[in-house]
Amino acid sequence: MLTRIDHIGIACSNLDATVEFYRATYGFEVFHTEVNEEQGVREAMLKINDTSDGGASYLQLLEPTREDSAVGKWLAKNGEGVHHIAFGTADVDGDAEAIRGKGVRVLYDEPRIGSMGSRITFLHPKDCHGVLTELVTSAEPSADHSSAEH
Amino acid sequence: MLTRIDHIGIACSNLDATVEFYRATYGFEVFHTEVNEEQGVREAMLKINDTSDGGASYLQLLEPTREDSAVGKWLAKNGEGVHHIAFGTADVDGDAEAIRGKGVRVLYDEPRIGSMGSRITFLHPKDCHGVLTELVTSAEPSADHSSAEH
Repeated sequence: MLTRIDHIGIACSNLDATVEFYRATYGFEVFHTEVNEEQGVREAMLKINDTSDGGASYLQLLEPTREDSAVGKWLAKNGEGVHHIAFGTADVDGDAEAIRGKGVRVLYDEPRIGSMGSRITFLHPKDCHGVLTELVTSAEPSADHSSAEH
Repeated sequence: MLTRIDHIGIACSNLDATVEFYRATYGFEVFHTEVNEEQGVREAMLKINDTSDGGASYLQLLEPTREDSAVGKWLAKNGEGVHHIAFGTADVDGDAEAIRGKGVRVLYDEPRIGSMGSRITFLHPKDCHGVLTELVTSAEPSADHSSAEH
């Protein structure tokens, strides 16, 4: 069951400049940064609020590390903007299978590793009224990383 | 101060079909519907979770009521997808002025009425790394509409 908006994924050309925009304009601070070579992105997570399921909602700023990555191709076509939205669930495997059973294309056979050690999968945007949709199960059961900030 | 992801605004061609997709695929139910003639949209709010500031996060599904509305023009150009993101604040007037003072274009001189009697304004996407960004102050101080569902 999907129990929160986990994050909004935003593609950008220059991660440092975009992080600085969100800090200077709104006061949002970086909670976590990492490079995901499989996804071909360098990213920063900005935590916005905690959520009623014990998790949190983030902005995920994504800069492609190579032009032929999914985000790199998307950015070349669309320019900077919202790339995907992500819902949090305690059971990405079970939810992905249930959703696949309803005829929505799930992009990975098995969930892969996402931000902060989470398990993630994506749903085909053409099956979701134009919205690239991610499902996320956080690495920690509580989904609360406030004590693990780095 | 912006204290939550208030909603993700998603433009769609057929509101009823899109509401049904979100219900059938994820189990999300409609929390509120309305027509905003000024914005030229018919909309459904799907509540996803409560937030740590006493508010909530929603998906806002938007169908244009006329082709020359902002969402109608956007949809004709881009097709269905994420139209904007919105942050919640207790003081949209003060935050909009502070953000204007930082050189970001605010689209309204004064906040206007948004979903569920909220006060809203928008920031120019070209000043926000491609993201049309809304600021929202809910109609009720608690920002919690769970007892006012209709």
